Order: sequence, then C-alpha cells, then structure tokens
Amino acid sequence: MTNMEFTIDQVAGMLGGEVKGDGSETVNMLAKIQEAKKGQITFLSNPKYEQYIYTTNASAVIVSKDFVPKKTIRSNLILVEDAYVSFTALLEQYHQLLSFQKTGIEQPSFAGENVKAGENIYRGAFSYIGNNVTIGNNVKVYPHVFVGDDVVIGDSTILHPHVKLYGGTRIGCHCVIHAGTVIGSDGFGFAPQEDGSYKAIPQMGNVIIEDYVSIGANTVIDCATFSGDSTIIRQGVKLDNLIQVAHNVEIGKNTVIAAQTGISGSTKLGENCVIAGQVGMAGHIVIANKTSIGAQAGILKSITKEGQQLLGAPAFDVKDFFKAYAVFKKLPDLNQRLRELQSKLQHFERKAESRSVESR
Amino acid sequence: MTNMEFTIDQVAGMLGGEVKGDGSETVNMLAKIQEAKKGQITFLSNPKYEQYIYTTNASAVIVSKDFVPKKTIRSNLILVEDAYVSFTALLEQYHQLLSFQKTGIEQPSFAGENVKAGENIYRGAFSYIGNNVTIGNNVKVYPHVFVGDDVVIGDSTILHPHVKLYGGTRIGCHCVIHAGTVIGSDGFGFAPQEDGSYKAIPQMGNVIIEDYVSIGANTVIDCATFSGDSTIIRQGVKLDNLIQVAHNVEIGKNTVIAAQTGISGSTKLGENCVIAGQVGMAGHIVIANKTSIGAQAGILKSITKEGQQLLGAPAFDVKDFFKAYAVFKKLPDLNQRLRELQSKLQHFERKAESRSVESR
Amino acid sequence: MTNMEFTIDQVAGMLGGEVKGDGSETVNMLAKIQEAKKGQITFLSNPKYEQYIYTTNASAVIVSKDFVPKKTIRSNLILVEDAYVSFTALLEQYHQLLSFQKTGIEQPSFAGENVKAGENIYRGAFSYIGNNVTIGNNVKVYPHVFVGDDVVIGDSTILHPHVKLYGGTRIGCHCVIHAGTVIGSDGFGFAPQEDGSYKAIPQMGNVIIEDYVSIGANTVIDCATFSGDSTIIRQGVKLDNLIQVAHNVEIGKNTVIAAQTGISGSTKLGENCVIAGQVGMAGHIVIANKTSIGAQAGILKSITKEGQQLLGAPAFDVKDFFKAYAVFKKLPDLNQRLRELQSKLQHFERKAESRSVESR
Repeated sequence: MTNMEFTIDQVAGMLGGEVKGDGSETVNMLAKIQEAKKGQITFLSNPKYEQYIYTTNASAVIVSKDFVPKKTIRSNLILVEDAYVSFTALLEQYHQLLSFQKTGIEQPSFAGENVKAGENIYRGAFSYIGNNVTIGNNVKVYPHVFVGDDVVIGDSTILHPHVKLYGGTRIGCHCVIHAGTVIGSDGFGFAPQEDGSYKAIPQMGNVIIEDYVSIGANTVIDCATFSGDSTIIRQGVKLDNLIQVAHNVEIGKNTVIAAQTGISGSTKLGENCVIAGQVGMAGHIVIANKTSIGAQAGILKSITKEGQQLLGAPAFDVKDFFKAYAVFKKLPDLNQRLRELQSKLQHFERKAESRSVESR
Repeated sequence: MTNMEFTIDQVAGMLGGEVKGDGSETVNMLAKIQEAKKGQITFLSNPKYEQYIYTTNASAVIVSKDFVPKKTIRSNLILVEDAYVSFTALLEQYHQLLSFQKTGIEQPSFAGENVKAGENIYRGAFSYIGNNVTIGNNVKVYPHVFVGDDVVIGDSTILHPHVKLYGGTRIGCHCVIHAGTVIGSDGFGFAPQEDGSYKAIPQMGNVIIEDYVSIGANTVIDCATFSGDSTIIRQGVKLDNLIQVAHNVEIGKNTVIAAQTGISGSTKLGENCVIAGQVGMAGHIVIANKTSIGAQAGILKSITKEGQQLLGAPAFDVKDFFKAYAVFKKLPDLNQRLRELQSKLQHFERKAESRSVESR
Repeated sequence: MTNMEFTIDQVAGMLGGEVKGDGSETVNMLAKIQEAKKGQITFLSNPKYEQYIYTTNASAVIVSKDFVPKKTIRSNLILVEDAYVSFTALLEQYHQLLSFQKTGIEQPSFAGENVKAGENIYRGAFSYIGNNVTIGNNVKVYPHVFVGDDVVIGDSTILHPHVKLYGGTRIGCHCVIHAGTVIGSDGFGFAPQEDGSYKAIPQMGNVIIEDYVSIGANTVIDCATFSGDSTIIRQGVKLDNLIQVAHNVEIGKNTVIAAQTGISGSTKLGENCVIAGQVGMAGHIVIANKTSIGAQAGILKSITKEGQQLLGAPAFDVKDFFKAYAVFKKLPDLNQRLRELQSKLQHFERKAESRSVESR
C-alpha cells in the first residue's frame, strides 16, 4: 500500500513515548513482531512473543516502560505506558492518514439538482449523486458509487467503490460501507394472486443507518415496506460481507454480525448481540440483547432471555447442542445397542416363559 | 422518498371511492394505521386494527363502504368496496409514478453500435450499452448498469443501478432487477487435468429471463455451458437477494425463492414452488411443482411427488423432521436411558444366572 | 452470442482433422449432439450418445477416426484422434476469439498518475485505474471496473464488468475475475471497548492472487490485517460465485470452491481440496491437502489427515454422516422402541420381584 515515512522520533512524539536508540531512523510500515523487517515498526505486548524482540530486524519496537530485556536487542525502542494501546492508536492514525488522502471531485462525475455538500469531500470519478442529496463534511464517495435521490449522508462517512444507496436512504456519521454493498433495495414482498402468480407489494419505506456503523462488501439491506417506515441499523453495529438484511428489520446498538448471515423481514435484533457467519433468522421474531449465535444456526422463534449462547438449526443452548451432536455421531452404534437389548430381552422373556412353563 | 402531493378528492377519484370529510386536504405519503401522521393516508381492512381508526392522526383513511364506526373518527374517510384492494392499488399507482419519473439519457453514458431503443426510455449516467442491443419501450436503465453485446430487453423492464448483463442475455417484459445483480457470468465448469490443475470449460450459452420476473440485489445467474443452451428463469419467478443460480438451471413459472439460496448446475425447479432462504440444491436434479422447501434445507435428490413440504439437510418431510429433531435435542438423555437399560438387563441376567445356578 | 462463421474445412484445419462430406458448408455455433441444429457443429465421444449421431441435424460432427457407424449419418464428419479433446480445444479457441475481440480504450475512462500498461489492452468505458498501477499485456479491463492505487495485474488477465480491486492488490497472469467481485476490502476486525462498542482494527495488508486463478461473480476476498501480510489465493485456484474469503486466509494450489462458501479469518486451506457450496469454515484452522468437503458442512477444527471426505456441521467422515443421518430420520421410532423396552423391563422386574416374593 501507499508508503509514508516517519522518523522514530516523530512516531514517539505521536504516542507520547520515549526513544531508546537512534530516533532519526525512518520507518514506513507497521508489521507483526515475528515478521517485521528493517524500516518497519512493531510492538511487544504479549509475553508469549518476547523471544522475537531479540531476533527481529524491525527498526523500532514499541514496548512498555517496565519491560526488562533478558538479552541484547538490536532494534530501537519506543517506551510507552501500554504497548498494545499505543500500537493500536498508531495503526488508527496511519489508517486515517491513508484513507483521508483523497479530496476533491474527479471527473467525470454526476450530481443532480439541489445537492448540498459539506467541506473536504472526495467524490471519485463516475460517482453518481441524485437530486436533493445532503452530504456532510469529510465524506468520501469513491468511484462508481450510486447515491439515489433524497439521500442524507453524515459527516466523515466513507462509501467505498460501487456502493449503491437507493433513494431516501439516511446514513449517519463516521460510517464505513464497503464495495458493492446495496442499501435500500425493495423488500421481498409479493401478494399471491388467484392464478398462482404474484403481484409485487410496492416497497416505499427506506433504510436508516445510525452513526459509527461499519458494513462489509456486497451486503444487501432492503428498505421497509410502508412509506414512513424504516429498516434500521442502530449505532455502532458492525456487519460483515454478503449479509442479507430484509425489509423492516431492526438491528440493535453495537451488535456484530459475521459474513453470509441472513435476517428475514421485520425481525428485531437486540443490542450487543454477536452473530456468527451463515446464520439464518426467521421473520417477525425478536432476539434479546447480548444473544450469541453460533455459525450456521437457524433461529425460528423469538429469544426472550438475554445473554444466551445458541447453536443448531433450529438453535438451542450451545453446550446442549454439542452434547446432542456427540450422540448423533454415534447413532448407528446406539441403534445397534438398542437392537441387541431388544433381542436379549426377547430371548430372556422366552426363557422366562419356558421356565415359567416348566415350573407350572 | 420523493414526495408527491394529492388532495383526498384526487385519491378518491383514482380509487372510484366516496369522500366523507374534507376532500381538499392534501396527502403525500402512505402509512400503516398504527403509525400514520397528519398528511398521510392509510387504510383499515383487518378488524383487528379497528381501535387505531379512532386515534389515528392520518389525514385520510380508506375504509369499506359498509364499515360502521363505534366511536368518533377525526380523519377524513374514503369509502370503497374493498379497503385492502384499494390501498394496494394506490400503493402500486404511487410506486409507478415514482419509478417511472425519470426518462431521457443522462450524460455521460455509453452506447455501442447498432443499438435499437424503444420510446420513453431512461438511461442513467455511466450506463453502458454494448453493440447490437435491443431495448423495448419504457425501459429504465439506471446509472452504472452494464449491458453486454447482443442483449435483448423487453418493454417496461427496470434495471436498477449496477445491474450487469453479460453478452447474449435475453430479458422479457415487466421485469425488475435490483442493484448489483449479475446475469450471464460463466458457469463454474472446469475439467481436471492430469497434473492436478483444472482447465476452464468455455461457457458459451446464455441466460433467458421471461416476463414478469423480479430479481433482488447482488444475486448471480450463470449462463449455460453450450452455445444454443440457456439458463432459464420462467415467467413470474421471484428471486430474492444474494441467490446463486448455476449454469443450465431452469426455474419454473411463478416459483418464489428467498435470499441466499443456491441452486447447482443443470437442476430443474418446477412451477409454483416456494423455496425459503439459505437452501442448497444439488446439481442435475428435478424438483416437482408446488414443492415447498424450508430454510437452510439441503436437497440432494430429485423430488418427484408434487406439493411436498421438506426440511433438513438432506431434506425430508417437514413434520417428520421436527419430530426427529425433538428427539435429537434429547439424545444425551436417550443415550443415558439406554445405558441404564443395558446395565439393568446385565444385572438382571447375572441375577437370573445365579438363580439358575442356585436352582440347579 | 456473437456469431462467427467458419467452413467445415476451416474447422478441420484448426483441429488437424479430416473431412468426410461437404467441407464447404459453414458452421457458426457449437452445441450438444442431442440438440444441435443445421449450421451447428457437435461431437460424439461417449458411446452412450451414439444414437443421436444418426438423427442429428448438425452440419458437422467431430468423431474419432476409428468410429464405425452402424447406420447412415446425414451430417458431415470431421475425423480426429480424440473427439472430446478436439471439441474442447475448439470450444477454447472459439471462446478466446470471442473474449479477446475488444481492444483499445473506450471513453470516458479514468486513469490516475503513473499507470504502466502493456500492449493489446482493453479498457472499457467508465473503468477507473488509480495511481501507480501496473497492467500487463493482453489484459481486459471491462466497463465499470475499479482498480485502486498501487495495484499490479499480470498478463492476459480478464477483469469482468464492475470488478473492484482495492489499493495494493496483486493479481497474477491468466486470471479471470467475474462481474461484481470485490478484492481487498477490509477484514472484519473490531476490538471490543469497555462501553460495549467496538473500534475498528485498521486493515492494512493486501490480497495476492497468483496465476491461473478463476473467481466467480459477487465474491468477496478481504485484505490481510497487518501491513506486509497478505490474503493469498495460490496458483490455479477456482472460486465460484458469492464466496466469502476473510482476512489472512490462504487457499492452496488448485483448490476448487463452490458457490456461497465462507472461510473465516486466518484459515489455511491445503492444495487440491474440493469444497462444495455453502460450506462454512471457522477461523485460524488448517485444512490438509486433498480434503473433500460436502455442501453446507461446517468445519470447526483443523483437518490434519490428507484426502478425507467430510460432511455435516460439525463435519466428520461422509459415510459415517450418512449412516448417522439415516438413524436420525428414525429417531422418533427409536425413542419409541426404547420406551417399550423400558416398560417391558420394568414389567419384567416387577414380575421377577413378585416371583421372588412368592418364592420366599
């Protein structure tokens, strides 16, 4: 990726740390301690990895002030309060420097009537902005993004290439939406007709995405059915790639959902849930806060008790699932044991019967 | 979404209904009776919701002629034969007004040689039309749509933003295809070579989509393998988002398929089937008409009897599945009971034996 | 699709075959022997289809030199060493003729600074090439493709419409990537905070795709987390549509994966594996070479032994799975048998007891 060079002194300055070694050396990339090379910067936090600090070629290692080396270290050190926190902060700063590089409007791009745009915006080539769109400050609209009419996009939100926002969508601040994701497509609603065909129920609502939401690539979020209604993704929600969110769904604050999971229409997911990949949820159900659902599970009914861990399709308690599955794997053996018991008992009965006859 | 204002008299005129109240008031949005606000129009059809008609702030409520109120109603009324039918008709008219608003060609857009286009067409900015393409009347080609060479698109079909039609695709009339969907990509066919590598089998067929077909967002339909062959989606089929339809598949008339389902190569689905989400179907099988398949089911063999309801992976009768699953959940208990029986019988045998020894 | 006409003599020339019949007749399409019409060319390789050679209307049939007809054949014949090999070669040549037709740069298209492009390149309208991009010879960049900064694309690679390559992606030679696929999007990594919210862990690595890789439509491959790290797709890998490949995954040489499968972060897949559709794999596991995994399976643990065939979620040996599943379907019956045994034994015990009481 794009390289940016800093001196070790500059990096230490950003982190409020102290340099031990040559602060004038330059570094341009972050890396893991096992793999870092000359010119790169890394960190040591987990004692499990201490061995690597004595062999690494990294130009600088971020370590905690109270770290006491047992051998010689070739690398320069940046001493900080908490190495993990500092490294994460550095990653974030670096990332922001990278992602906020581009500004201005590349041509050709398209904007309809009555577009209100804030300051410091990037609009990539071939991006399309419809009529009556409002865009906040520091928003990045990458190439080929489609923004329909009457859309609102909050400050500092990033729309990666080829994101599609249907008309009426509202996106909050500090959101990140990855390439190819579709927001606001028609809900899947069809009224059966007498001749066996189906008539589309017009989908007139919209999608509302609150602040600090991240959405992966090629995910789809359908709009609500009725005008005035919304499919709602609450603050801090994190959605992975290729997820299906049907019409009128609501996903509670800080809930995290892994790739390829599907949520059927009108289901309400609680806050702080953790949903693994390829999970399926039925429509019109409610999932309690802090529910944890394992990969490929199927949720057919509402979950009313908070904090449960579920697995299976239909899903139940994860520990009970694994116990049941352990027996499932031995079912042929279990069946065999049952058969043997039956024949033994039969044999036994016959014997008892004959004895009983004898003893008459 | 875009607002359009009508007077209540105008709406009543569209529906052939009679106004009770102030017909000059304007309305601009449709909403559910529980949630409708001033300026919105709603309907009462299901008696379950009658309570709301006495408290709603809706400017107008569509009700049946023979509805007898039990309390005072603040809203204006539009009296019709059948409130549900009228409201649905209204939704549809409203939707058509919205979706057919745009016409003309936005620039920049691209069209190859020998493109034949009908009347009243919309071609959004950054849309791409290849060579030898035929487009019917009233077709809407949204921004960033890709239409390959030799494609035919029937009247009144809507291609939402970023739809991709590979060369040779044929789409019927009155179809709706949502954003990001890919039609005509290469089927997944590779011939294993002696060195463990694979050689692509060229995919030369196309995809045919008949009339009144709806397809969701980010779905993929592969082309057929041989030239002259087609992957076929029959009239009235409704496909949801993120569905995989492999090469040479045929989906029968009026069959409905929910999100994230996958159909393997050369499988023929019958008519009027209802397939839930995340279902997987093997290749080269035939599914009878009116088959209903539950979510996450796996179909490995052909279904020859019509009208079955299936669940599980591999799938079997849905009621039988739930009965088996109920026992599955208790397998550890069942295993325990079996063990106890075994030891009891053993104990019993030993006792019987000792008795038999005693009685010698 | 686009038609190209050849005489039968010309086709025989390409294949090094001998014509029996009228070599001046023209053919323009390839088809299956059961369905081929006049003007089309087909082949007979599998004896199972011999019957069709006597009834086909195909203008030409490719057959092996040593084929001895049992009846009259209307079609012209092209005699070759191995009919299947020749037909496949023909398909491939035909396909290459088709796919390599377009060259040059359609306008409008976008290219950033410092783009190095080879010879005989196609760049479709609305394609976007970022800064510092290197493109090999014979590369086809279809309309609406997005190529981020610092990307490298090898010779003869085809990027179908709307492919998105994030900055830093490296693609080898002779790769084919289908429409809508996203490569290099952020891995799904979030650090939980004390207040229940999540902070994004910046994803700074890239994706490396080696030579001869094919990827289907609307698939997503995330970039690696750390700078210098890569998500790696090895030479000859074939990925189908709508697949999820998470950050830091590595897929071994010549492994084939069917549609809608998902692989979680940091998992290493071996070489020559065959993975069916809708499979889910946990993160941080290792799958041995030549592993075969059935549809919808769930892989939770590393597979260390090569060449296993697995099914189920969690997966185990496919034969054992089917045996266990056969009993699963009969669980209600098994449960019933167990109950009867219990009550029989109880009855028996009571009887024995009473007998024992009697005999006191």
